[in-house]
Amino acid sequence: MNEFELIDEITSHLHQQPNVLLGPGDDAAMLAAPDGRVLASTDILIEHVHFRQEWTTPYELGRRAAAQNFADIAAMGGVPTALLVGVAAPKAQQSQWFSEVARGLQDECDVVGASVIGGDLSASDRIMIAVTVLGDMRGADPVARSGARVGDVVAVAGRLGWSAFGLAALVSGASIDSALLSAYRVPIPPYAAGVEAAAAGATALIDVSDGLLADAGHIADASQVTIELETPSLVPDPEVLAAARQLGIPALGAVLTGGEDHALLAAFPDASSVPASFRIIGRVAGRGEHAVLVDGHPYQGKQGHDHFG
Amino acid sequence: MNEFELIDEITSHLHQQPNVLLGPGDDAAMLAAPDGRVLASTDILIEHVHFRQEWTTPYELGRRAAAQNFADIAAMGGVPTALLVGVAAPKAQQSQWFSEVARGLQDECDVVGASVIGGDLSASDRIMIAVTVLGDMRGADPVARSGARVGDVVAVAGRLGWSAFGLAALVSGASIDSALLSAYRVPIPPYAAGVEAAAAGATALIDVSDGLLADAGHIADASQVTIELETPSLVPDPEVLAAARQLGIPALGAVLTGGEDHALLAAFPDASSVPASFRIIGRVAGRGEHAVLVDGHPYQGKQGHDHFG
Repeated sequence: MNEFELIDEITSHLHQQPNVLLGPGDDAAMLAAPDGRVLASTDILIEHVHFRQEWTTPYELGRRAAAQNFADIAAMGGVPTALLVGVAAPKAQQSQWFSEVARGLQDECDVVGASVIGGDLSASDRIMIAVTVLGDMRGADPVARSGARVGDVVAVAGRLGWSAFGLAALVSGASIDSALLSAYRVPIPPYAAGVEAAAAGATALIDVSDGLLADAGHIADASQVTIELETPSLVPDPEVLAAARQLGIPALGAVLTGGEDHALLAAFPDASSVPASFRIIGRVAGRGEHAVLVDGHPYQGKQGHDHFG
Repeated sequence: MNEFELIDEITSHLHQQPNVLLGPGDDAAMLAAPDGRVLASTDILIEHVHFRQEWTTPYELGRRAAAQNFADIAAMGGVPTALLVGVAAPKAQQSQWFSEVARGLQDECDVVGASVIGGDLSASDRIMIAVTVLGDMRGADPVARSGARVGDVVAVAGRLGWSAFGLAALVSGASIDSALLSAYRVPIPPYAAGVEAAAAGATALIDVSDGLLADAGHIADASQVTIELETPSLVPDPEVLAAARQLGIPALGAVLTGGEDHALLAAFPDASSVPASFRIIGRVAGRGEHAVLVDGHPYQGKQGHDHFG
């Protein structure tokens, strides 16, 4: 199968929504941007850095690559509309592998109503997937990280600690609740909560990809405030508590520092404006010595992952 | 320098145009799309597949990555507006290297009035750059590959064979005109010719990235026609002729099959509609046995590069 036959095989698994004015196959695609603006974000996933083939099927890899990018659009309060996907893989990679990645991308697209509108293929000795997502604010204002104000409440929607325990179990070989393994392989970001947060007047919004403390720190730094989290509001889910007991790892640590579940973390002007999809976990205070406090104290421990540190 | 310090260092070399409504640093950027549509295309460049560090400086790599993506927007008749850039490099890579790539991206952005609006960094043992370009049709209709009609004239704007001879000289170690080496390292696509072609009523448009014959074949296949090229109209540039003599490689072969100069190849309804930036090199005929004919005959030889063939 040559490069053009492989592209045909891949695109046979894809279909486009009506807002795709010109789909894959030309020098560029064209997408509708009805309110005259487009959101855009990009992520790269590299074998052995972001995923391992023994832990993640190509179908799951496709879903995950799409999901983590869609979460970036949800984290502005927007709706994901399109993906462009560059895939590099060894020359010997079977066409079936590419088809499975495409099926995963398409299935996650179907969750949010987005389409794959373009891509590129290359040979490489290491598998690499580069995804760019486009999104639509539907006339609303995007919610940046920088708008949190003193007195705001801080709230989160979605899972915390699930993906971290899924990964910990895969690393250690322990047998845990398969829902946690699935959470590591394919996150389930609370996409709709992003639009709800924007509509409810969220002052700041971010997706939890680096870990709750690290991403709360990003809001705190961008907004020049301190975020005070309260652990009584951060009760781990029963699945997380059970895995914590099995693996002998503190559940709260995973809730505070585990990334990749792509929960949405937001600040709202007051408790009454917080949508039902969010739960309040803290408040915004004036900037002190630390960006984030947990029960009034700086957190002792590693807060997130650093590729170059 | 940790990942966030490195991002600060990189973004210090970038600046954004007024159509960037929200720049790098949040979960997603936001770009104006004044006519309610956005063009998008993506490319990946991988070390040892698309470039070699001994032949291309990081500054040139940045310019080249931007240029080849801008050419894809020009090849729709559009104007490039923004780039999103994923960069993977070894952990030990110096921050200076990233700064030079960023400077190259910015300088090529300045040629067309575009901005880098987002990116991602990762560690990887192999350097990889993934670029997504966005573009604006400014209310005009995009020119696809599929609109060429029998009786159209075929014309090209920009260089043919320059990059191929630059690469051949680098491979062989021969000393040739440095303009050809520069053409390989940083192509100079005729960006403005794309908008001119669309305004002049071009029926099909593509950028010559795989080689003139291969890309003419893409128009021919998409339009279900045969493209007839005439070599008397394809006189190689003097720089190409000189290098051909030095290296003992036929100049015409490089003109017909050399890619990566990102010339623009178009079909126009008649000779009088061809803009001054284009030169006529053939015509569109009814679909025969072959997609492309050269002086009435199928071309004998390799027509382009196939990553998976």
